[in-house]
Amino acid sequence: MSKQFQGNFFEDFRLGQTLRHGTPRTITDGDAALYIALTGSRFLLHCATPAAHAMGLREKNVDDLLAFHVAFGKTVPEVSLNAVANLGYADVRFLRPVYVGDTLSAESTVIGLKENSSGRNGNVYVRSTACNQYGEEVLSWIRWVMVHKRDPASPAPETVLPELPDHVSVDRLPIPAGLDAADFDTTLTASPHLWEDYGVGERIDHINGMTVDESDHTLATKLYQNNARVHFEAHMMSGSRFGRRLMYGGHVISVCRALSYNGLANAIGIAAINGGAHCNPSFAGDTFYAWSEIADKWELPGRADLGALRVRTYGVKNMDTRELGSPKVEVEGKSRYHESVVLDLDYTVLMPRRG
Amino acid sequence: MSKQFQGNFFEDFRLGQTLRHGTPRTITDGDAALYIALTGSRFLLHCATPAAHAMGLREKNVDDLLAFHVAFGKTVPEVSLNAVANLGYADVRFLRPVYVGDTLSAESTVIGLKENSSGRNGNVYVRSTACNQYGEEVLSWIRWVMVHKRDPASPAPETVLPELPDHVSVDRLPIPAGLDAADFDTTLTASPHLWEDYGVGERIDHINGMTVDESDHTLATKLYQNNARVHFEAHMMSGSRFGRRLMYGGHVISVCRALSYNGLANAIGIAAINGGAHCNPSFAGDTFYAWSEIADKWELPGRADLGALRVRTYGVKNMDTRELGSPKVEVEGKSRYHESVVLDLDYTVLMPRRG
Amino acid sequence: MSKQFQGNFFEDFRLGQTLRHGTPRTITDGDAALYIALTGSRFLLHCATPAAHAMGLREKNVDDLLAFHVAFGKTVPEVSLNAVANLGYADVRFLRPVYVGDTLSAESTVIGLKENSSGRNGNVYVRSTACNQYGEEVLSWIRWVMVHKRDPASPAPETVLPELPDHVSVDRLPIPAGLDAADFDTTLTASPHLWEDYGVGERIDHINGMTVDESDHTLATKLYQNNARVHFEAHMMSGSRFGRRLMYGGHVISVCRALSYNGLANAIGIAAINGGAHCNPSFAGDTFYAWSEIADKWELPGRADLGALRVRTYGVKNMDTRELGSPKVEVEGKSRYHESVVLDLDYTVLMPRRG
Repeated sequence: MSKQFQGNFFEDFRLGQTLRHGTPRTITDGDAALYIALTGSRFLLHCATPAAHAMGLREKNVDDLLAFHVAFGKTVPEVSLNAVANLGYADVRFLRPVYVGDTLSAESTVIGLKENSSGRNGNVYVRSTACNQYGEEVLSWIRWVMVHKRDPASPAPETVLPELPDHVSVDRLPIPAGLDAADFDTTLTASPHLWEDYGVGERIDHINGMTVDESDHTLATKLYQNNARVHFEAHMMSGSRFGRRLMYGGHVISVCRALSYNGLANAIGIAAINGGAHCNPSFAGDTFYAWSEIADKWELPGRADLGALRVRTYGVKNMDTRELGSPKVEVEGKSRYHESVVLDLDYTVLMPRRG
Repeated sequence: MSKQFQGNFFEDFRLGQTLRHGTPRTITDGDAALYIALTGSRFLLHCATPAAHAMGLREKNVDDLLAFHVAFGKTVPEVSLNAVANLGYADVRFLRPVYVGDTLSAESTVIGLKENSSGRNGNVYVRSTACNQYGEEVLSWIRWVMVHKRDPASPAPETVLPELPDHVSVDRLPIPAGLDAADFDTTLTASPHLWEDYGVGERIDHINGMTVDESDHTLATKLYQNNARVHFEAHMMSGSRFGRRLMYGGHVISVCRALSYNGLANAIGIAAINGGAHCNPSFAGDTFYAWSEIADKWELPGRADLGALRVRTYGVKNMDTRELGSPKVEVEGKSRYHESVVLDLDYTVLMPRRG
Repeated sequence: MSKQFQGNFFEDFRLGQTLRHGTPRTITDGDAALYIALTGSRFLLHCATPAAHAMGLREKNVDDLLAFHVAFGKTVPEVSLNAVANLGYADVRFLRPVYVGDTLSAESTVIGLKENSSGRNGNVYVRSTACNQYGEEVLSWIRWVMVHKRDPASPAPETVLPELPDHVSVDRLPIPAGLDAADFDTTLTASPHLWEDYGVGERIDHINGMTVDESDHTLATKLYQNNARVHFEAHMMSGSRFGRRLMYGGHVISVCRALSYNGLANAIGIAAINGGAHCNPSFAGDTFYAWSEIADKWELPGRADLGALRVRTYGVKNMDTRELGSPKVEVEGKSRYHESVVLDLDYTVLMPRRG
């Protein structure tokens, strides 16, 4: 029996199948510090223990996206090692804060299968969850990927498509137990803007940019223990159509979220990701810029201290976002993402209210 | 109201004005480890908890310069986002050790203003302080920067220039409470040289050098949460006169301090920075070398265990320091820094005495 | 007396001499996180505290190679600053787990000397040990290096060659106190292969590769506080026969060990390194691949839960290992390492048995 694991192919997946992912990972202050160094993120609850205490948390919690990337990375070997493309995310919910010392494990269930018309690959839909060391779910998400078939001649499975919610509805938004933003102090972030100040349809260009070099994205992706080969092997990728390593799209999300601090500084946590597209590939040397649009805003049931903003953040490379009116352009009668747009992320953040 | 913060312009500053900087930052073992990886620093009290205990400290303390860069980084948004140039530092005092778990916040007071003759910018002098979570001052420094005016037509403020001490006098040098170097063990650093062994005027070439690549300086500067755009945006900087990202000068200070270990290994802490100049810009790929001159040496009142050395450390790029007799050269009758000299740092270190 | 230390030359070493190395180093979670980011390593006991608890350890322990590199780095100033070449390792034993919070110190004893026929350099053999803060040995190893003479005219010492064991015999393999693999859960690593499943002579190509960029290897080597100049100074190295910085061979070992997870996931710890050769130099930009051969397998006295595998891991750069039948090729009648082979490491791992 071959000792190396080369990943699952389309015909290896069965509806309802459970995939248990290795290796559990204890998150430490080292991970959190590296995450700051890799992204420049400055969100309050992930930086400052006294502020987290003042808001009812046990301590500063790990950046939501760091927890997500670590959990996501665990699913790569069994889910997407033979992926042609990562097609989408849905219903990503940040169910509990992750604290330093927590150990994350992940498993996935196959919830949909559809062979593609070419007969050479198919789409696999999984619901993945990550639990902490107490067996509590901290993250839950749906993801779908296009996966190669090992043998194009193998028969197609019955097509089953899961229901994909357009967005995580307000009643399903997780709010950390104990979190209390009633006395939120805007001097801590040096930013006065709270939930009431944002209007649906408002656009915020985040001004600052960030160049990501080869070591930056590979260190990040190794930190997440994501072992997809396209991110790490210059030798192999020199023979690909890209000619070089691809940047892990999750790291682009992290960089854009960090950039969004300038304009959304008081978006203290991500409650959900409704969906997202990596519109164009990103490579070392790209400078990322971002703008956000407030897609919706919701009161939270029974809470005067906290509201939710549904945000659409667009990541752009090597171009000032203010030069782009829209993320899409018309190409031969079709609406397509502008070639500089690398990310279209639809997510929901929690923000203190004026109280 | 615009959500993005684009920094203060010269006419936004008022004498006596207090600027409160976001976001507090809890320093962790992760930050300390990264600092070692980014600089190669080996100073004893920042590396070894048992040695710190033996010398009366609560535990190994965070490198003085790491604490400084984090505190300094907080002041960038309100002080220097629109800076033309960072002109100088004075009276930088390291008032208390910073330990893992401490949370730093910073604020600044405008102590001087002077519009420049061009009418297009002016110099702003601030006194900044960083406090820990107990409200104790851990750092205090004066800094002055040249800042753009938003509108050249706006009236000039009254010129007020603060008094800038030439150096931190020996009676104002902070010494960590409890620090006791009476039984200092030179085998711990494998270096026998103590305070008595250094002579005023002595020059020490530190031999080893260090190349800093793009990811090194940007990871460091993001770790410090310093968000000055010139360090991060290759896209924007490609249109500047440098054509590329500038290295944060503070990181050059850190690299030179780390290099100085070879010759000043027992300089266990920095008590003060008297002044400093970033003589020429530094870029990724530069290899830094350093030499130091002992500018002065002082006994400390009532202490037989510890003395102070005033040190002038010169950082040089891409050149063996032994090829340079002096940091300055005569150019058309004027004394100027040699084009390879990037740093001229005047600071005061604590060093155990022979007892 | 010169303050800078420029390292020992061949005539500075005396048989039986003890070299005490500075500076003790407290290992933290920051170091462990960086090690993961620098190598992508996923071995269970270094990642997951609950798994370490379940197997009888105090907590997740620091990666064996991280501990080795830190300890090794300490010996560089006194042993190999003037080395022409690092010739070999033998009898490397990982005597005790290193945990976060442990402080490592190192010392070396000269156990062999042999001037080379050129009269310009000689080989120095040292036995080095690293202790934790309790004075317990955590690592012990023999290393030999070729070191320059300061003065070719100085007399040769008597030649003394130490005995070098071919490998660490099974009775001398250290096993962490308390380690109990009787209930080892292979779902934690998502890999079913245990000690019984490996056959002597079996070859495992580890498939995945990893490109190491300039910042990766220099960050790692600075983290280890190894200050050998060849790794850090692009300026100096531009004048060498390599024209650029050399990668620290120890980091290549770490990368190959991390790659070996795909095929040896349950090799939960390294008990010993029997020997190793850095067959060709490595540089930034190289993509490393690896394959392993099972050189031997041993039961451990009195243990039904754990066995030992003697493994030979070959590191290859910029080439799929499956294209190489053997690490050596015949060149003009002589057997030599293939020019793409960078590492030949002979070591012994512990692996749970089926019980």
